[in-house]
Amino acid sequence: MEFWFDFASTYSYLSVMRVDEMTVEAGVSVIWRPFLLGPIFASQGWAPSPFNLYPAKGAYMWADMTRLAAARGLPLVTPDPFPQNSLTAARVAIAVLDKPEGKAFCRAVYAAEFARGQSISDLEVLRTCLTEVGLAADYVAEAQNPEIKGRLKAQTEAAMDRQIFGAPSFTVENQLFWGDDRLEMAIAAASG
Amino acid sequence: MEFWFDFASTYSYLSVMRVDEMTVEAGVSVIWRPFLLGPIFASQGWAPSPFNLYPAKGAYMWADMTRLAAARGLPLVTPDPFPQNSLTAARVAIAVLDKPEGKAFCRAVYAAEFARGQSISDLEVLRTCLTEVGLAADYVAEAQNPEIKGRLKAQTEAAMDRQIFGAPSFTVENQLFWGDDRLEMAIAAASG
Repeated sequence: MEFWFDFASTYSYLSVMRVDEMTVEAGVSVIWRPFLLGPIFASQGWAPSPFNLYPAKGAYMWADMTRLAAARGLPLVTPDPFPQNSLTAARVAIAVLDKPEGKAFCRAVYAAEFARGQSISDLEVLRTCLTEVGLAADYVAEAQNPEIKGRLKAQTEAAMDRQIFGAPSFTVENQLFWGDDRLEMAIAAASG
Repeated sequence: MEFWFDFASTYSYLSVMRVDEMTVEAGVSVIWRPFLLGPIFASQGWAPSPFNLYPAKGAYMWADMTRLAAARGLPLVTPDPFPQNSLTAARVAIAVLDKPEGKAFCRAVYAAEFARGQSISDLEVLRTCLTEVGLAADYVAEAQNPEIKGRLKAQTEAAMDRQIFGAPSFTVENQLFWGDDRLEMAIAAASG
């Protein structure tokens, strides 16, 4: 199973906090694939975010997120601005996801953003996320490496090729599952 | 709890087939409110349907519906054209929902459309849906009554006032729940 997420995405916060535990329990292996929704939304005419473009949908999303976060015991604040610029966070994630602490770094970024309202485009915030999970703060600088930039670009293009139009998304072979509320179905498909 | 649905809406088919049984079991009373998504989508710039406007989203919706319908043992075909014109069906529903057979009529319309691929703008199809649940075929003619037309228009305006932007939606006092996958949460809120 592949797990596609954008650090600016609210519902990805819900999935990133539970996907590891759920898939370990189900015996399903997961490849984490950070990507950027921005270019995908822009190609659909949804700039900067469908939640800001359509106010009724945006107001609903926050009400829904508030209920779901409360039910799961997750803190939730609205980042300012929303959506956050997730480019550098995604590049750092690409640089560290092959380390054992990579997933913990991703969770730390979502916690900084949605539990504490910190700006994830602030390099100091990203450095703290790295060091708090035992990774070197230098990965923030390494994320500017052209090879890392190219890998994030390629991953965003791969998401487009798979017809991904939102986050979180889960893919199991050719099947696409969209939304934190389809995580259980994706795991069942991957186990079956 | 109020249940807002459009006869053209795929995910409303899932809810209309289970909402009665689930709410009876939970001891929650539900008012069924057919309305028209067309004017709401048009006001957002989503004409004729977001699923046709955004092909990746449309392809995903049918894949998702196929999985969900299979899991629930519901037949599913794609109506031609999609979306269907749901205006007359909604007017007839307004005319009969105060009868004991009203909900069964709504289920019959969804079954004609999504289980058998019949056209729900065909008056003969609507007459058959009426008679098969024990209602007079004459309600199709009565649906052209200005008072019925006005009630559907008012109900669609009430949906807009409640910031409803899709179907099915459920409202419990001031809380809005969107999508068949939020039906359980809506029932929990109404029971609480």
